[in-house]
Amino acid sequence: MMREVTRDDTQAIAIGAGILGAGGGGSTYLNRIRLDNELRQAGHPVPIIRADDVPDEALICAVGGMGAPTVSNEKLQEGREILRAVRELEAHLRQKIYAIVIGEIGGGNALGPMITALQCGLPVVDGDGMGRAFPELDMDTFMIGGLAPAPFALADAHGNVVIFERIGTAKQAEEFARSLTIEMGGSAGLVMPVMTGAQLKTTIIRDTLSLAKRIGETVLDCRARSIEPAKTVAELCNGKVLFSGKIIDVERRTVQGFARGKLIICPFTPQHPPNAWGGPRGVAQLEIEFQNENLIARSNGETLCAVPDLITLVTLDEGEPIGTESLRYGLRVAVLAMPAPKELKTPEALAVVGPRAFGYDLDFRPLPGDLL
Amino acid sequence: MMREVTRDDTQAIAIGAGILGAGGGGSTYLNRIRLDNELRQAGHPVPIIRADDVPDEALICAVGGMGAPTVSNEKLQEGREILRAVRELEAHLRQKIYAIVIGEIGGGNALGPMITALQCGLPVVDGDGMGRAFPELDMDTFMIGGLAPAPFALADAHGNVVIFERIGTAKQAEEFARSLTIEMGGSAGLVMPVMTGAQLKTTIIRDTLSLAKRIGETVLDCRARSIEPAKTVAELCNGKVLFSGKIIDVERRTVQGFARGKLIICPFTPQHPPNAWGGPRGVAQLEIEFQNENLIARSNGETLCAVPDLITLVTLDEGEPIGTESLRYGLRVAVLAMPAPKELKTPEALAVVGPRAFGYDLDFRPLPGDLL
Repeated sequence: MMREVTRDDTQAIAIGAGILGAGGGGSTYLNRIRLDNELRQAGHPVPIIRADDVPDEALICAVGGMGAPTVSNEKLQEGREILRAVRELEAHLRQKIYAIVIGEIGGGNALGPMITALQCGLPVVDGDGMGRAFPELDMDTFMIGGLAPAPFALADAHGNVVIFERIGTAKQAEEFARSLTIEMGGSAGLVMPVMTGAQLKTTIIRDTLSLAKRIGETVLDCRARSIEPAKTVAELCNGKVLFSGKIIDVERRTVQGFARGKLIICPFTPQHPPNAWGGPRGVAQLEIEFQNENLIARSNGETLCAVPDLITLVTLDEGEPIGTESLRYGLRVAVLAMPAPKELKTPEALAVVGPRAFGYDLDFRPLPGDLL
Repeated sequence: MMREVTRDDTQAIAIGAGILGAGGGGSTYLNRIRLDNELRQAGHPVPIIRADDVPDEALICAVGGMGAPTVSNEKLQEGREILRAVRELEAHLRQKIYAIVIGEIGGGNALGPMITALQCGLPVVDGDGMGRAFPELDMDTFMIGGLAPAPFALADAHGNVVIFERIGTAKQAEEFARSLTIEMGGSAGLVMPVMTGAQLKTTIIRDTLSLAKRIGETVLDCRARSIEPAKTVAELCNGKVLFSGKIIDVERRTVQGFARGKLIICPFTPQHPPNAWGGPRGVAQLEIEFQNENLIARSNGETLCAVPDLITLVTLDEGEPIGTESLRYGLRVAVLAMPAPKELKTPEALAVVGPRAFGYDLDFRPLPGDLL
C-alpha cells in the first residue's frame, strides 16, 4: 500500500500515468518537473491516503487541467491557478477541503493534483475518476455515478476564478467549462467535483496511483535490463501489444478546444521495410483516431480496440509513452491495448464513454479482462 | 421626482427606453408584457428611489439581459433567471442586496430590472450605467469609473448559475460572459456589477428612468394630437431629426453573440419616390452600421453621427422605436440623432465607447449639447 510520494517516485509515476493516459491527460514531462520542484520546496513527500480512510462527512475535491494537450504543452501554467480555485471554493462553501482526488490518472493530470495537494497542505487519495484519461469532464465515474457537477471552479493563469454554482447536468458543465477554457486561452485549472467522503467511496476507481507507479517501475526495470518494455507492461495490465511499427502519417487539428486527428502506423517487415514515403502497398497498417486521447484502432477496416479500452503508443526501445500532442512522423512505436477498469464497462458508463458517445457507429466489444 | 412605477407607466417607459436604446437593449415589447404581468401579480407599484438616497455602505447590484436581441426576441426568458442569480450572489457574499440598478436604460433592459426588483421585493434606483444601450458589458460608467467587475453572476433559463468570482478586467469579464452566454443559447441574465451605495453615487448616470418616461409620454402626447413625434422628441433630447425615409436594404448577421449589420435608408422626394427596388440614383441615402446598437450614420461618405451619441430609428407616423432586430425593408422611419450624456464623453469613456473602440478610424465629433 502506498503511503507517500517522494522525489524518487515521480519518474515511475510519470511513465505509468503516461501509459494509462491513452495518449491524453497532458504532458507528464512538464508536470513532473513542477512536482519535483514543489516536493523540493516542501521538503516532505506527498501524503497518500486510501479512499476508505476518508471520513464519510469530509469534503473532497478532484482537480485537474482542462484543455487541449497541444495547448497546455506550450502555454505553461502559472502554477497556482488550481490552488486559487480550491481556496475560492472553500470560501464559497465555508468548509475546508479534507483531501485532493486525482480527476484523471492519465498523463500530466496524474501529477498536477499532487502539486496542488502540497500547496494546500493536504493528502492525495490513491485512485481517480477515470482509470485512464478522457477528453471531456462528464466522462468520469463521479459524474457517471450521479454526483452533482456543481459547484465547481475554473481558474486561469491571470488570477481569474469562476465558480459554476448551479449546473443542471454534467454535459452542460462540460460545455460551459469548455467554452470558458477556450476563452481563457485553451487551457485552465479545474476543481470538480466537490464531494463527501461517502460519495467518494461509491464512485472512485481505487488504487490507480499505485498502479501508475507499478507500471512505471516495470518500464524502468525493463530499461535497466535492456528489454523492450511493451510486452511486459501489456501483460501487467492484462493487455497485449496490438502492433509495432513506424508512424508514417499524422493528421492533427486543434478544434473546439480539443486536439483531434488520426495517425497511421506501418509495420516492420523484413521484406518491406518502411521507406521515407511510408509503407509498401498490401501490408496491413494500423490507423488510430484520437480526440485528446486515442479512441479507436483499426486495421484493414477491422476494429481492433475501441474506447473505453486503452490504446497507448510507447516508444519501441524505451517504453516511453507518447501523448497525442507529441505524435510525429518516423517514431518507432509499440501500440498497447489494455482493458479498461470494470467501472467503465457498465451500461451506464458505456453510454458516456463507449464508442457511440464519441460518434462511432459501433458496439463496444471489450478486450478480455480488466485493468488491474 | 419619480417615486414609483405603476401599470399606467409601462407604455411610456417602454417607448422612451426604446428611443434611448439606439436600436439595442432588446425588445421592449416582451419585457413590457412581463413587467405588466409582474405588477399585476405583485399588486403594488415598483418603488423608485434616488441614487443619493442609497446609504453609502448598502450593497447594490445592476442587472440586465446579455446577448443578441435577435436571439432574446425568439428564445424567451424563463422569467426568474436574474432573480436566481441575485439570490446566489447574496448567498455567496453573505449580504443582502439593498436595491436594484438598471444596467442599461436602453430597450427591454430598462424594464427587466423592475421585474427582478418586484420578484426580490426591492426598490429600483432612478438611473443607469449607460444612459442608452451598448453591446458590451465593459461599456458602462460603472466599469469606466473603475469599479471591480467581479464578483458577478450569469444565469440561464435552465437554472444554471455561474459566479465569476475573480476577474482581472472588465474586458475579460465581457469576453468570459459573452462566451458563456453563447453556450447558454445566445441570451442570459446578468447581475453586474455589485457595488456599494458610495460607489453607485460616483458612477451612475442619474434620473434616466425618469427621462425614459418623459420621452415616452411626449411620444404618446404627439400621437394623441396626431403629430409625427420625431421632431418633438429630438428637441426634448437636445438632438435633431437626421433623416426621414424608407428602409431599402438591411444586412444582418448574428456573429459572436452579437446582432451585426447595416441598413440603407432612402429619402422621400416628390420627384423620386422610392420604388420597390430602392431609391433613385443620385439621391443621397443614409447608411447606418450596427452591433446590437446603431453605431454610425453616414451619407455621401460623410459621418453625420457616431457612437456614443445616440442614433435611433422611429416609425415616421407613431414615433415607435425600432430595435436593430426589427429592421426590415419598407419601414418608413425618422432617424433621431441625440447627444450622449456627458459621462460618456470624457476621454476615459471615449476610450471604451467612442468610434475607435468599435473599430472605426474616426475621432468622435460630438453633437452639440448633452442628453437631458
